[in-house]
Parts: sequence; C-alpha cells; structure tokens
Amino acid sequence: MTDTRLSELIRLLPGLRLSTDPGDLEHYGRDWTRRWTPAPLAIAFPADIAQVQAIVRWANGASVAIVPSGGRTGLSGGAVAAHGELVVSLDRMNRILGFDPIDRTLTVQPGIALEAVQKAAREHRLTYPVDFAARGSCQIGGNIATNAGGIRVIRYGNTRQWVAGLKVVTGQGDLLDLNRGLVKNASGYDLRHLVIGSEGTLGIVVEATLWLTSPPPETQVMLLAVPAMDALMKVFAEARHRLRLEAFEFFTDRALSHVTAHGGQDPFDTVHPYYVVTEFEAPDEAAKGEALAFFERCVAEGWVVDGVIASSDAQAAALWRLREGITESLATHKPYKNDVSVRISAVPAFMDDMHRLLTASYPDFDVVWFGHIGDGNLHINVLKPAALDNEAFVAQCEHVTAMLVDTLRRHGGSISAEHGIGLVKKPWLGSVRSPEEIALMRGIKAVWDPNGIMNPGKLL
Amino acid sequence: MTDTRLSELIRLLPGLRLSTDPGDLEHYGRDWTRRWTPAPLAIAFPADIAQVQAIVRWANGASVAIVPSGGRTGLSGGAVAAHGELVVSLDRMNRILGFDPIDRTLTVQPGIALEAVQKAAREHRLTYPVDFAARGSCQIGGNIATNAGGIRVIRYGNTRQWVAGLKVVTGQGDLLDLNRGLVKNASGYDLRHLVIGSEGTLGIVVEATLWLTSPPPETQVMLLAVPAMDALMKVFAEARHRLRLEAFEFFTDRALSHVTAHGGQDPFDTVHPYYVVTEFEAPDEAAKGEALAFFERCVAEGWVVDGVIASSDAQAAALWRLREGITESLATHKPYKNDVSVRISAVPAFMDDMHRLLTASYPDFDVVWFGHIGDGNLHINVLKPAALDNEAFVAQCEHVTAMLVDTLRRHGGSISAEHGIGLVKKPWLGSVRSPEEIALMRGIKAVWDPNGIMNPGKLL
Repeated sequence: MTDTRLSELIRLLPGLRLSTDPGDLEHYGRDWTRRWTPAPLAIAFPADIAQVQAIVRWANGASVAIVPSGGRTGLSGGAVAAHGELVVSLDRMNRILGFDPIDRTLTVQPGIALEAVQKAAREHRLTYPVDFAARGSCQIGGNIATNAGGIRVIRYGNTRQWVAGLKVVTGQGDLLDLNRGLVKNASGYDLRHLVIGSEGTLGIVVEATLWLTSPPPETQVMLLAVPAMDALMKVFAEARHRLRLEAFEFFTDRALSHVTAHGGQDPFDTVHPYYVVTEFEAPDEAAKGEALAFFERCVAEGWVVDGVIASSDAQAAALWRLREGITESLATHKPYKNDVSVRISAVPAFMDDMHRLLTASYPDFDVVWFGHIGDGNLHINVLKPAALDNEAFVAQCEHVTAMLVDTLRRHGGSISAEHGIGLVKKPWLGSVRSPEEIALMRGIKAVWDPNGIMNPGKLL
Repeated sequence: MTDTRLSELIRLLPGLRLSTDPGDLEHYGRDWTRRWTPAPLAIAFPADIAQVQAIVRWANGASVAIVPSGGRTGLSGGAVAAHGELVVSLDRMNRILGFDPIDRTLTVQPGIALEAVQKAAREHRLTYPVDFAARGSCQIGGNIATNAGGIRVIRYGNTRQWVAGLKVVTGQGDLLDLNRGLVKNASGYDLRHLVIGSEGTLGIVVEATLWLTSPPPETQVMLLAVPAMDALMKVFAEARHRLRLEAFEFFTDRALSHVTAHGGQDPFDTVHPYYVVTEFEAPDEAAKGEALAFFERCVAEGWVVDGVIASSDAQAAALWRLREGITESLATHKPYKNDVSVRISAVPAFMDDMHRLLTASYPDFDVVWFGHIGDGNLHINVLKPAALDNEAFVAQCEHVTAMLVDTLRRHGGSISAEHGIGLVKKPWLGSVRSPEEIALMRGIKAVWDPNGIMNPGKLL
C-alpha cells in the first residue's frame, strides 16, 4: 500500500479494514456483468457509520472516487470499479439492529442479505415480501440503491414501498436520518424516495428500517399452458379480477426447454408457446373453488389449453423452479440480457414488434422471453449461436439493443425495468428520460455530491 | 388591469382567462386557513398545458411569483397568496383524459376533484382508494402536491402510491412527462416521487395518471368503546393480526360529545374515554365469524367494554359520521388544529406526555384528539374557551405548539403528518428535518426553480 492517498486514509482511520490484495481487487471490483476489467484502488470494509463518513470525507479531499458495494449481483455494472476507485464494501455492516412488533419494522445494516431479512421477518411471524432469485447473495443496501423488484411486485410493489426509514451518508459525508419509520410525514421533499433507486450516485445507504407485513394466508400455485400472447393477456385480466394474486409470471417454450435440459420437469405432454406460473391466496374452499372456476373459464374460452395445480408444497416448489431456474439454465450460453418494461397494455404489441424484427434480422438467434407480465416487465435473453464467435455476437447484440430501444420508444417503454442503468444502459438513458429530466438529475447529483466522488460514470 | 407585467402576459397569451376582480382575489388568494389576508396580483385560469408553460416562462422574465392553486382545502397555508403573486388556478383543467382497463389507470387533469376521480373509478368497477372528508372540494393536483393521506392509508398508503405518471411544468417552464404509467422503471432518480409532496415549490402538476385497484369485497364497520390508550393499542394489534383492515380510526369522548351536539347518534349508554371506528373485509361467514371472535377476545381481555357492528349500509354510514363529523362539529369553536405523527409504537407515550403537559398548563382548554392510530397520525384540536379573547388564545396556542414540537422531538415524531408545511408549520420545519436535509431541499429547489418563482415562502 504505497499510494499516498491510501496512507493518508490509514493515518486518519487506523482501525479501518482495507485491502489491496489482488484477489480482493478482482472480486470486489465487479458485479455479475463481466464486461469490465476490475481495477479498483483498494477495498475498504467499514465497520460502522462513522467510518463510512470518514471515508467519504477523505475521498472528497483526496479526489478519490467511491463505488458503494453490496452483494454485487447487479446486471448493469452499477457496482463495477474499473478506474482506480475505492470500493466501499458493506460486507461487515450486516447486522439486524432492531425489531418493533407494533410498528412492524426491522432495522438493519445495509450489508445484510435479502434472505436474512426475510428469515428474520419469518421468525417474528411476519414477512418482508420483496423477493427474487438473488436473495441469498444480494444485500439490502443494493436492493434500496436499485429499488429492486422481483416476482411479487404485482402484489407488494418494489423495495421502495417497504423502506420506512433510511440513514444515508451523502457525497459530502453528512449523515441523513430520513423519515425515521413514520407512516405519515408531510414535511417537505421526500429525500428517502430520491435515494431509493439512485444507484449509489448520491450517497451510501448505511442503515434501513423496513416495514414488514402479515404473511399471506395459504396460497396455491398453478402452471398454465397458453396458446398465444393475446390469450395470455386475457388470462391475466381474468386472474387479476377473480383471484388475490401473489405472482403472475410467464415464460416461453424456449425458456422451458432450457430449464428442462437442466433437470426441470415439464408436466405437460406437448410443447406450448407460453406458460404462466401464478400464485394466489387460497385459504379456504371458497377461494379454491374460485381458482378452479377461473381455470375452467380460461379453458372454456380457449385461453388455456392445459394446466396443473400444485397439490403439495413440494409440487409448488417444482412449478416455481420452472420459472426461477431460467436464468441459471441460460448461464452457460453467455446470454445477452435485457430487462425492459412497457405499460401492461402495451405488452402484446411490443412483443409482437420485437419478435418480427428479431426473426427478420437474426433468424438463427435463440431468443428467450420471460418475466413479470403483471408489471409489464419482460426479460429478453439472446443466446449466442455456437457457430458465432464472441466478438461478432457482441456486435450483433449492440444492433439488437438499437432495435429494442427504438421499439421501446414507440411503445412508451423503459430500457430498464428493474436492473438499473449503471454502466450497461447508460448510453440509452436518453431513450427513456428527456434532456430536461437528465439535466435535473445532474443538478440534483451536484447538490448531493458536489465533488462528483459517488459512483462517477454510473447512471449519469 | 394596469400592471405592466399583466399587460405583457395578456399580450403573450391573449386567450388566457385572467381575473383581477376583488372577489376572485380574495376567494383564490387563500385556503382553509384564515390567518393571512389574500393579496394576489391576479388569478390565471389556464386551459391547457401550453398556457401553464407560457405563464411560468412569463413569470420568470417578469419576476412574478406563482402560487399553484387547487381546491384550496389545505390547512397549512400552502395555497395562500398574500404578497402580489399570480395565482394559477387549475379549475378549468378538470377533465378525465383517459382510462385503460388493462393498465387500470385513469389519466386526469389536475383540477379534477378527488370525488370525481373516485366516481370515475367506480364507473369502471374499480376504486381509487385515497379518501378523506374534503373529497368533494379538493383537487387531485393538490392531493399530489401534498401527498394526501386520509382514512384508508393503513390499507392503501398515501397518494404517492397511486401515481403512475405525472406531467409537471418546472419552475423554468419545461414540461416533464414522468414515469408514463410504467409499473417498473429503474432509470435513474424518480423525479415523480420528488414532486409528490413538494407543495408547489418545484413545479405545477398539469396531468396525472392514477392507478386504480379492485374494490374490496364486502366490508363491515364496527364501533368500539375502549377504556384506555394502552387497551386501544392492544385492540389495534389484535385487529391488524386477525382482520383485513380497511380503516382503524380513533377519537376521544370530547370529540364524540361535539359530534353528538351536532346531531350525531351515540349508540352507547355511557361515556367512554376512547372510541374506535374500524372497517374490515367481511365477504363471507368465516370472515364475519373471525370479526366476532376478535370482538369477543377484546371484551374478554377488558380492552373493549362495549361495541356495535353495523348491520346495514345506513348504520355503517352513521357510525362513520361519528368520526368524519368531528372537524365540522368543531368548526364554530375556531379550533387550533394540529396534525402530527409519531411511530405507531410511540403513540401512547406521546399522548400521555402531551396530555400531562396540557392539563398542567391549560386545564381549562377543551382538547379534542382524534385520528388515524394505525398510521401514528393524531389530530389535536384545541378549542377556544368562550371567556378567552381571540388574541390571547392565539398567543397561548403558540405556546402549545412549542410544547408539542418539543414533545414530538423527544418521541421522534413529525409536526406534519399529512397537512404539509406551507406557511403554518414553516417555523417548525427544523424540528423534523435536519439542517443538512433542509440544505439539500434548498439546493434541489434551486435546480428546479432557479429564479425562485414557484410558491416562494412556502415550506422552505
């Protein structure tokens, strides 16, 4: 550690754990994207809020950029450190600080894994309902910085809805204690909501108070085989009208074929264009009867051609694996991933347009669609054809992105539904936010972080 | 209209409806507060977004302050124009622009009354669940500017949660089209949430797309007589645990006595310290049985000493009138109103402290408590004793506020739960937001409104 800036940091904070070990630099210098070569200056592991504040103040003086770092499960490069930044890992600040049974709040440090939050909630017979596949690795601080969504947004909303209070260290090293767990607090601009989803560009989340809620009553899981996208939208409308939905996810035959190739069990005899996994409340016979009536109506109308209702927890888990196993089953194919959204009503026309464009330009691409139809959130994974070399594939994917951006624009969509902008989508920010909005964002960033040390180059 | 600035506005916008009629100046120059003498320059009634933009651009050039004006039902002076401002009334922009059955969104102009939004939702067999007593007069633009709450926050959250998209004219006259109805959109700072609750200091809401939802199944309304605050908290915990609450409101014997003096019907034979009106889902016999079991448990534990379950819609409405009639029943007493919040868990200790302080300092004050216990939101109305003259009463109330602010600070509360800061609570903003937070708010305001023309003097 010969860098004089680091020597100064060590002098200021002799107790701070700091690493320049090459393994750490590589490990903590990147997220789930693999496009950038990690090259941080060092990794800091603060133990408390005071250390975070001291680091930020030092960084302002030393002109060192900071990359706040959680579980680094992001897919947009928001936690990449490739230009001599100090990575501030929240790994050591991972404790539960408190629980209040009347407020039904859990106060946690930012480095705690989502799964640990969910588990703590369960121990109090409550639930923290934000949920997605990276639950074991992602951290709550990162969830807040990206306003994480997942599979139960249709019922519970995004992370935003569950943040009762937020402690944040700003780009100047000030500690903010935002909202303090109040349900109602009409006292000026809600800075908490500004920080949520800001991808570490305004400050570092150092503590969060999360609302918990009652777990749903008993639920049922259903897998449906659907012949067409229009039918799928009708199934969704019917389900939302008649059932208390916890989740409504779809995927295509291509997605299912990859999952079954990785050990997933297809319960149907024939291949269908679309599948839906839906979970809904079914606490009593009346609700179960309504679910059956929903299914029968869908079949009678021709919207659904086959279906399975899980009759045990194990079977429910097996049905869910068909949806949740998609990402893992595609991993070996180095998929080119997209996470986009349109209004729910625009989904069929958007998918239709994209399907036509892709089929015309790239007939040999394996395109896998899946996602959260009830949120208008589609994941589009393009798999590299074995015959194509990596460089050519990346170049073609850039062209796919241009088509995607153009199509989204026509349908009023967003190039990032839930993965954030980070580095990956930064070139396309202007397709979803106007020049005036971007100018306001830059202005706000300058107020919070006048020296531009917080995650520079990301998002803006 | 001899003011040269107004002549210029008329020249720029010959079609703009503009009034300097003294009656209009008084009517549109104030809200439900009566502390300030209205003295606006003029009232503008734009017919469309382009006119709003042109007005704001003119105001920047002419250095005229703008007061955005909705239904003016506010209680914090946020819509008061007492210093030669141009009031921009949204009264003429009051239409429904669209409904989408798949997105379940209603797009409206800002001047539409909340009640008209609720009615439009019902016509589509859906519900817009934000609700409070001013529904007939308040406008949706004002609801958004104050993040209005009300009686169903415990179930549905504040206005914030129902805004899918927002068109806003900034302090520079730029038109922003924020979020465009997307459920998920992780593309940088959520400026929509920054505008919600900003009390007209950043820009003017000129269009909103609102999410609607399924109406609840059949509900029941129950009135409970409760012997003590600790018992009331136990009743709340039990109700939240066992029932699907739509509302859980409380008031004191003093509140009830004013309502019954105004024609409300007290169903009980004796006076009780606290009352609860609660509404919950009761779609079938099982749910009704659970409600009865809840009631019996509360009685067995001594938390509830008497109760009524409404057996008809008319009876349910009568029970609700006991709670909703409070404000009207107090109006003749010129009450000194406070709208505060603490964490739910802090309610008993906070109320206890305030009760002791008030009894010690002002034993002859009639203090009426009511509010949304499930949100930690308490309304405290102090009535003027007949013997006290107005000036002395106001002076003493200022002292009550100081006690209240101090007590709230000790309990981590907020001086504004849902009424906003406006002019009334501006002196106390520093009791709920830190100097660093206020500095960030000022910085953000300067980015949106560099010439400081948007509702100056309010909030900040």
